[in-house]
Amino acid sequence: MNSEVKKASLKEIAEALSKVETDTLLVVVDSRVWQLYGKDLEENINKVLEANKKVLLYKTLEGEATKSMAEFEKGLEFFLEKGIHRKSHLVAIGGGATSDFAGFLAATLLRGLSWSVIPTTLLSMVDAGIGGKTGLNSKNGKNLIGAFHMPDHVWINESFLETLPETELNSGKGEVIKYGFLSQEIAELLKAKSDLSSIIEACAQKKEAIVQADFTERGERISLNLGHTFGHAIEKIYTMPHGEAIFWGMALIFKLYGTEEQLKLLRTFETGVGASFGQSPWFNKTFPVDKIIEYVSKDKKVKSNGIVQTVTIKEVGKFETKERTLDEIRKELEKEKDELRIFDF
Amino acid sequence: MNSEVKKASLKEIAEALSKVETDTLLVVVDSRVWQLYGKDLEENINKVLEANKKVLLYKTLEGEATKSMAEFEKGLEFFLEKGIHRKSHLVAIGGGATSDFAGFLAATLLRGLSWSVIPTTLLSMVDAGIGGKTGLNSKNGKNLIGAFHMPDHVWINESFLETLPETELNSGKGEVIKYGFLSQEIAELLKAKSDLSSIIEACAQKKEAIVQADFTERGERISLNLGHTFGHAIEKIYTMPHGEAIFWGMALIFKLYGTEEQLKLLRTFETGVGASFGQSPWFNKTFPVDKIIEYVSKDKKVKSNGIVQTVTIKEVGKFETKERTLDEIRKELEKEKDELRIFDF
Repeated sequence: MNSEVKKASLKEIAEALSKVETDTLLVVVDSRVWQLYGKDLEENINKVLEANKKVLLYKTLEGEATKSMAEFEKGLEFFLEKGIHRKSHLVAIGGGATSDFAGFLAATLLRGLSWSVIPTTLLSMVDAGIGGKTGLNSKNGKNLIGAFHMPDHVWINESFLETLPETELNSGKGEVIKYGFLSQEIAELLKAKSDLSSIIEACAQKKEAIVQADFTERGERISLNLGHTFGHAIEKIYTMPHGEAIFWGMALIFKLYGTEEQLKLLRTFETGVGASFGQSPWFNKTFPVDKIIEYVSKDKKVKSNGIVQTVTIKEVGKFETKERTLDEIRKELEKEKDELRIFDF
Repeated sequence: MNSEVKKASLKEIAEALSKVETDTLLVVVDSRVWQLYGKDLEENINKVLEANKKVLLYKTLEGEATKSMAEFEKGLEFFLEKGIHRKSHLVAIGGGATSDFAGFLAATLLRGLSWSVIPTTLLSMVDAGIGGKTGLNSKNGKNLIGAFHMPDHVWINESFLETLPETELNSGKGEVIKYGFLSQEIAELLKAKSDLSSIIEACAQKKEAIVQADFTERGERISLNLGHTFGHAIEKIYTMPHGEAIFWGMALIFKLYGTEEQLKLLRTFETGVGASFGQSPWFNKTFPVDKIIEYVSKDKKVKSNGIVQTVTIKEVGKFETKERTLDEIRKELEKEKDELRIFDF
């Protein structure tokens, strides 16, 4: 159960798609991506049509808005009404929200269709688009509904980044920084301020390797969760871009359970990927202990009542997990509360 | 990926549940079953509570009504609001609709929880409760949304059948008859008019064996579809109980593509299991060719535009599949239309 992850031009992608063993392609594309690239995409889709395939095109809402139950139902019925079959192949074109949503459609239409991803944001190229995690948001939290459903192909085409808004590019950089802690190779690339293209490639391959080793997240895959336990809470509380929230989630975890050196490295990697996250969202404000605990308690990773598995770093490339109770974490946060208010590093 | 399928008393089930490795049980029970057996079930659930497990109880709508997207969302949010975790275990108590619905909840809550089934109808004891097919109904057809998600345990307790309405018992018998064509052993049991208990046991084990050999329905599992291609259409057109519709689906397939002997055997098995389906729903009426074709065209089993994989029987215990176009089937039905009007066997 693994995906082929590789860089490809739109032309190469179209060629690959025309060779997929199916007569019906379900294309699920983010509506903003369609606005920007519809013409380019259509030209290439025509090549697929020439290969005698039927193409059904579905445009999602922009970003996370599409990951609702109502949109899910709309997407399902759209395709079911056309009379699709089990050998249909679905292609997701967009950011992480699009691939989460489209992948969940693929996982549940007729009890599962094969699918592929063309990630169009930095975040999805290095993380969300790879690894088969799919899903929707619940009223009770992000990504609480979903399935593991591995795509056959992930085609990375960096030309999409040219039109990516600055905040989204930055958000992706937050996740890129995470890989710096999980891989010596990527740490070196970041320290050397290498070009983004090489960094993306390395992150995507690292993610795919981790996922292949541990598809259902019982072992190494948990390392990808570095910064996410607090990060998801921060994302919600401050309505902040995902990767940026993960950056602050890592900062928090290093502050509580890590080292000064790790905090320093966090800034080094930040510079290395050309990001600048400035000061924490709670700087000079009351640190929101209760809200953090509330959101953490609803996280999927909370193992059983009150036990949270936190991911920390022993050294670059080596992670550690530890079980902590919500109460322990609350106490730790309460203790650091005043310091966190003025926390800078 | 296989289930433990076995007969068990409520007490034995409670004992087994108290040993499941989890601290949180999600119980999804059909509301009618709860009305009838709530007291018995509660007593046994108390034993589970004594084993220090949290029990979250969710009552579904009766029967197929629960397999809607709205109910699905309700069920998801009910459990998510309680703050469940990935090591939670879900238990479905009810007929096929309940296990379809509950299993899809288990498949999609936090991207997948383990689960078990206590089937309470004959249909679910011999078929729907076994094999991990889960799902919802779409506006465009039955079970078009769902997932393959294998239960850990299927506990068969025949005492539930004592309160099962006659029509539902009959419906289950329709599926039992199907197994007569798939297994020499079951054919013999039916010919000998064996007690229902032995027949149920044999059918349940046969289903589990087929599923184990072919989880995602690329080979032998397709044999379970005998009578279903037309059966699903008949079920919709005449709003008829599932198993009864499958009986007529088999009659139709034997009439079109089978032998006189198979039709005779169908009646032998019918008598053997103590059912009596009488005359076809289209007897003395116009045979609804267009509607049949319309529903068949939307069936999940329709491979690609217009190609239907039909299951027929070579001899008891040996099935055959053949690809036919919708047009071929339509022509065949048109040809037999007048004869079908008065078809009796």
